[in-house]
Amino acid sequence: MNASDLKSGSSVGVVVPQRAAFHEPLPLKCGRSIAHYELAYETYGTLNAARSNAVLVCHALNASHHVAGVYADDSMNTGWWDNMIGPGKPLDTNRFFVVGVNNLGGCFGSTGPLSINPDTGRPWGADFPLVTVEDWVNAQARLADQLGIQQFAAVMGGSLGAMQCLQWSIAYPQRARHALVIACAPNLSAQNIAFNEVARQAILTDPDFHGGNYYASSITPRRGLRVARMVGHITYLSDDEMASKFGRTLKHGKVNYGFDTEFEIESYLRYQADKFSGYFDANTYLRITKALDYFDPALEHGGDLARALAPATAGFLVVSFTTDWRFSPERSREIVHALLKNKRDVTYAEIDAPHGHDAFLLDDARYHKLVAAYFDRIAGEPA
Amino acid sequence: MNASDLKSGSSVGVVVPQRAAFHEPLPLKCGRSIAHYELAYETYGTLNAARSNAVLVCHALNASHHVAGVYADDSMNTGWWDNMIGPGKPLDTNRFFVVGVNNLGGCFGSTGPLSINPDTGRPWGADFPLVTVEDWVNAQARLADQLGIQQFAAVMGGSLGAMQCLQWSIAYPQRARHALVIACAPNLSAQNIAFNEVARQAILTDPDFHGGNYYASSITPRRGLRVARMVGHITYLSDDEMASKFGRTLKHGKVNYGFDTEFEIESYLRYQADKFSGYFDANTYLRITKALDYFDPALEHGGDLARALAPATAGFLVVSFTTDWRFSPERSREIVHALLKNKRDVTYAEIDAPHGHDAFLLDDARYHKLVAAYFDRIAGEPA
Repeated sequence: MNASDLKSGSSVGVVVPQRAAFHEPLPLKCGRSIAHYELAYETYGTLNAARSNAVLVCHALNASHHVAGVYADDSMNTGWWDNMIGPGKPLDTNRFFVVGVNNLGGCFGSTGPLSINPDTGRPWGADFPLVTVEDWVNAQARLADQLGIQQFAAVMGGSLGAMQCLQWSIAYPQRARHALVIACAPNLSAQNIAFNEVARQAILTDPDFHGGNYYASSITPRRGLRVARMVGHITYLSDDEMASKFGRTLKHGKVNYGFDTEFEIESYLRYQADKFSGYFDANTYLRITKALDYFDPALEHGGDLARALAPATAGFLVVSFTTDWRFSPERSREIVHALLKNKRDVTYAEIDAPHGHDAFLLDDARYHKLVAAYFDRIAGEPA
Repeated sequence: MNASDLKSGSSVGVVVPQRAAFHEPLPLKCGRSIAHYELAYETYGTLNAARSNAVLVCHALNASHHVAGVYADDSMNTGWWDNMIGPGKPLDTNRFFVVGVNNLGGCFGSTGPLSINPDTGRPWGADFPLVTVEDWVNAQARLADQLGIQQFAAVMGGSLGAMQCLQWSIAYPQRARHALVIACAPNLSAQNIAFNEVARQAILTDPDFHGGNYYASSITPRRGLRVARMVGHITYLSDDEMASKFGRTLKHGKVNYGFDTEFEIESYLRYQADKFSGYFDANTYLRITKALDYFDPALEHGGDLARALAPATAGFLVVSFTTDWRFSPERSREIVHALLKNKRDVTYAEIDAPHGHDAFLLDDARYHKLVAAYFDRIAGEPA
């Protein structure tokens, strides 16, 4: 193995998405329940005989169960955390059995607003319930049951994915030996909610949204989704990263005193918005922003996060990034302080990275070495 | 005079907006020119015999010539900087003659997209030129000519208004003895442009925008304006200010698992958005964001701000606010450094205020005392 292999490992290669069906009604936090549902998932690596080497990877706002590898019929469609997961990578599929799952309400194969509601024979649309982080984790636990995984060696996620890891540690302390909580916050700030609300208003007021029941027509609320994605993107990048990537560079060397693309940053945002609005479902987007807004484990403990995390017995790796202004290091430290108050085993690292919130997805050597070392430790522990 | 009077001064009282008409074509930076135009303006206080006590107040994104006082028929419509300007206030109308002007392209009385284009007999709409900070300052200079003001004692503004003050100092160094440059930046960052672009895309893609020619119908692109205003509002407030004003407080004590207003911050943003979209013109909004994006005096000097500011001879008061993340103190310091490089007379203050960018509009005692002291100094100087 040469140095470059050592650094990046290799790909898990061609992967095949799978589906699991559930027929036991799932009670939801909103008070409703879902009678039948499916979850799309992928697995990489091999579950050992003791079934003790499974790692669940939870996705954030716009990702899916396609965490690593490529599809046989779409070799460009690389999993969203492929730099992290694979043979020889920080989460090493030679040692661990990795599970990625598309959350309930998603638009990549799991049951969601796009799916047919068996009660009506039509897409759920607006009638699909508002699902929460708690609901997702309950559904993931049932998938683990089906896969015969009683306890994950670790649950791992960034951003909203990390919130699911927190929830795992609270709701299923015996089922997650470790939680890797990356670029997380214990709840959204008013500013976080505000940005989500802008995204939602853009979608909800798009005339093509039709109250959420737009599947009958071939027209989707792309205008709203475009604006939603643009707002999101700004919050994923640091001010400095935007400055160094785009600055005030003009696309065509000069301004044209009109509303066509002038600055590179406009071009980038429009491109990202067009791409996203072509594949993501607006009803799913609305629901995921709400799940983010709602998540607040301390709420039912009078705002005391330590009490909320009291049931957690996992070992924790908490990672934040210095320039992340969406979920700043300060928010991660709230989690760390709460865990320490409970005398839990916590490793905390604040990575000096210029990229903002998106840093959790990027291939930063210090960050990846840290995660690799943490998984080394997990691999060395008795299950 | 009691302590409370001393602190806040009193109101200029009832004011009457005025209009000035111009028939000499105004060449614009975009290459076009405007043959005839009007500017709406207001004045407070009395121009002295030497005509040496005039202060021009330049407005930012959504404000107007109505800077102080109230209207006889609308006593609730207080000028946007009324806490700063009036008898006994930091900009004391007992000593200074204050001029507020609605910029060209505005929607509060000055010629803009809403106005009738004399060549067509219809509203300008999409055909109204993209005006720049430079154009606005040139138009303001012509208004000064009409008012018989050869030199302002000071030009003053916050945010985009402060950019106009910078431009005054560059383009008309002999006509502005002082420049009060508050919560400013020497140009927009990529992130600033990105937020403007989100606002523009929300408006431009609103089906009711009709390419900018929506005046013929009674329907205006309110949906787009709403989203634009919400995005703007988030950037005007600091994260901490939003947290302390709204936090995660729920409007009705509990979530309803739907898309009606749940959090106080949502309610606030929706209210501000509804109000704004009822009175502001979308074409004006688009143009003002473009004027912001374009302003970059250093550009034609190879990015050297000191060279761009070399013509400036004014005395400067530069003020920034610690929690302003739209135009951070760092950006104000760029201006200060450039002025110091030119050995100009600069006073710089970084006010420790929690409110973010909006702080420049608020009644902060240290900030107002500083501005009052600076105007004391101006009043004591020989004209």
